[in-house]
Amino acid sequence: MSSCQTTLHVALPPDSRDRGYPIHIGTDLLNDADLLTSLIGDRPVMVVTNEIVAPLYLDALRRALGRDRPVTELLLPDGEQHKTLDSLATIMTAALRGHHERRSVFVALGGGVVGDMTGFAAACYQRGVDFLQVPTTLLAQVDSSVGGKTGVNHSLGKNMIGAFHQPLGVIIDINTLRSLPQREFAAGMAEVIKYGLIYDAPFFQWIIDAGDSLASRDPEALIYAIERSCAIKADVVSADEREGGVRAILNFGHTFGHAIEHVQGYGNWLHGEAVACGMLIAARISESKGNLETAAVAALEQLLQRFQLPVEAPPDMDVDSFLRAMSLDKKVAHGQIRYVLLSTLGRAVITSDVGRDDIEAAIGR
Amino acid sequence: MSSCQTTLHVALPPDSRDRGYPIHIGTDLLNDADLLTSLIGDRPVMVVTNEIVAPLYLDALRRALGRDRPVTELLLPDGEQHKTLDSLATIMTAALRGHHERRSVFVALGGGVVGDMTGFAAACYQRGVDFLQVPTTLLAQVDSSVGGKTGVNHSLGKNMIGAFHQPLGVIIDINTLRSLPQREFAAGMAEVIKYGLIYDAPFFQWIIDAGDSLASRDPEALIYAIERSCAIKADVVSADEREGGVRAILNFGHTFGHAIEHVQGYGNWLHGEAVACGMLIAARISESKGNLETAAVAALEQLLQRFQLPVEAPPDMDVDSFLRAMSLDKKVAHGQIRYVLLSTLGRAVITSDVGRDDIEAAIGR
Repeated sequence: MSSCQTTLHVALPPDSRDRGYPIHIGTDLLNDADLLTSLIGDRPVMVVTNEIVAPLYLDALRRALGRDRPVTELLLPDGEQHKTLDSLATIMTAALRGHHERRSVFVALGGGVVGDMTGFAAACYQRGVDFLQVPTTLLAQVDSSVGGKTGVNHSLGKNMIGAFHQPLGVIIDINTLRSLPQREFAAGMAEVIKYGLIYDAPFFQWIIDAGDSLASRDPEALIYAIERSCAIKADVVSADEREGGVRAILNFGHTFGHAIEHVQGYGNWLHGEAVACGMLIAARISESKGNLETAAVAALEQLLQRFQLPVEAPPDMDVDSFLRAMSLDKKVAHGQIRYVLLSTLGRAVITSDVGRDDIEAAIGR
Repeated sequence: MSSCQTTLHVALPPDSRDRGYPIHIGTDLLNDADLLTSLIGDRPVMVVTNEIVAPLYLDALRRALGRDRPVTELLLPDGEQHKTLDSLATIMTAALRGHHERRSVFVALGGGVVGDMTGFAAACYQRGVDFLQVPTTLLAQVDSSVGGKTGVNHSLGKNMIGAFHQPLGVIIDINTLRSLPQREFAAGMAEVIKYGLIYDAPFFQWIIDAGDSLASRDPEALIYAIERSCAIKADVVSADEREGGVRAILNFGHTFGHAIEHVQGYGNWLHGEAVACGMLIAARISESKGNLETAAVAALEQLLQRFQLPVEAPPDMDVDSFLRAMSLDKKVAHGQIRYVLLSTLGRAVITSDVGRDDIEAAIGR
């Protein structure tokens, strides 16, 4: 296979302490020693990864980092339940034992959990060191690459402890998607579809047209889908600096999705699966309010099915269980649940004007 | 006693995400509900303090915060050994149980340990909330009020985990100094004296002239000493944004001081006591290099004695034990120990040009 590649530059607001950074997206990037050197020179590296990812990709990264560079490797257990302050302490201990100073670069090799924890560790280690994201799941590639959110969970709430810390750069080697289980790939696709729905109707149409290429994980199609997703997220995040709250549209499908995750137990439905179902509910409500054409909702349903994503709410959940779970969500302001709907295909709005009947009709029970 | 008060405004660099903030210094400020309201309005508050400080000052702060404001109080055990990630987790748990959101303000009521931990907790709680410093020791008042350094210790190193996080404001109620044990008061005076030595010869002379007033904790003298100390630290820190490394002059006396603390065991010598002795060693070396007049060194020695601060290195420490301990210090760059000396009274320089003989002569053994 020939190698292909693109680079997206993420700009940061002028008052940010950080400059912008590049997102490199392509094939065979993990092996690309020149790319790594262009980003981090000969600086010492602290690699954080997990037990699932390490056997697959750590060797390639190690080779690209070269023999002369001081490198510390830390393998954490896999899973969201390990995204804790305890794991943060483990990273700190490994970095101190490896004699890392402020010049060192932390490298996150793995999915969103590894990225969030490593980014937060980098934000706090000796009051801040640089870090590089090497996301290996589609979800992390299109979600964690932009926005600078890092952190860990607390037993009383997800992502309650963290920092904004921008990476030095992001390396997305789409070869890593070849080993991604089908369910996880589809869960990432749900977020890609979201970007089209809330921000870019032509991109939504492109995803439909390229459905077969994407499903067969064709490199060129994946590179474009990831690039466009990251670019849209960067646009939305940078707009938020000027217009407070715009970023909330990124939660399209998430209000209903979180309710599903909460009631079903985290991990039983993947995040992206719950979001897929949540997006369809939100799209149906948008349709009932006269904002979205019936054909667009049908196209979304078909697209989700194309990726084997769920289009029906869990059988044990009725409108009351949704409402109960959603009012527990931390994003509820003053008891008002805030919904993200579509005002038309490619445009999102935030509203509290969603009634019990609207939800009942959308979930069909 | 009549109440007296002054306010110092700390400017932050233009590219900082934070605006500047006020340091209010005076008598009876803990009871000043209007001052608190001017800083934090009616926002909910999470107070972090410790078991020693709470019985003395928590009631006054509670009254000033008012009855209508949601307030959570957390008492941590006293002592540097509790400045850990575990205590950070305790703060986070208390804040979450108190249902604090991003609008809440964390208030640090206590010495440097409480301030460092609370500031770091505020930096990380839900990716950042505002915090207010209410330092109750002289050391914290003249040291932690400026610079934005927050954090906790790791078993492998002090202050290894942290963040830069500027407070919303600092309230220094010098009434709190009345209850401060003599040794701790003197340890704080060591840092005040340091500011004169490295930056402001007239202020050094003022401290000598005001020695009796300061020792008897006269409010007006204390307010001026604290104000001038904070202003000097703010000057040095802001200069560091432009000229990298200038901030290191704040470590005057600390290289030798850390060696003493390390060899004697932390807590046996108070930090300020070790710094006092370290400043005298550094001043003697500066004298031997022809930078400082003999009379200035004698005046420093006399001033330290005035506050019952140590002027002799611990009897069990010779030049070798100093050199061994100093080369372990994290500030050693490429095996070269960097010393802060005086180029004249009121001006500091950083140099590696200090020999074994210089130290031997300065410690007198």
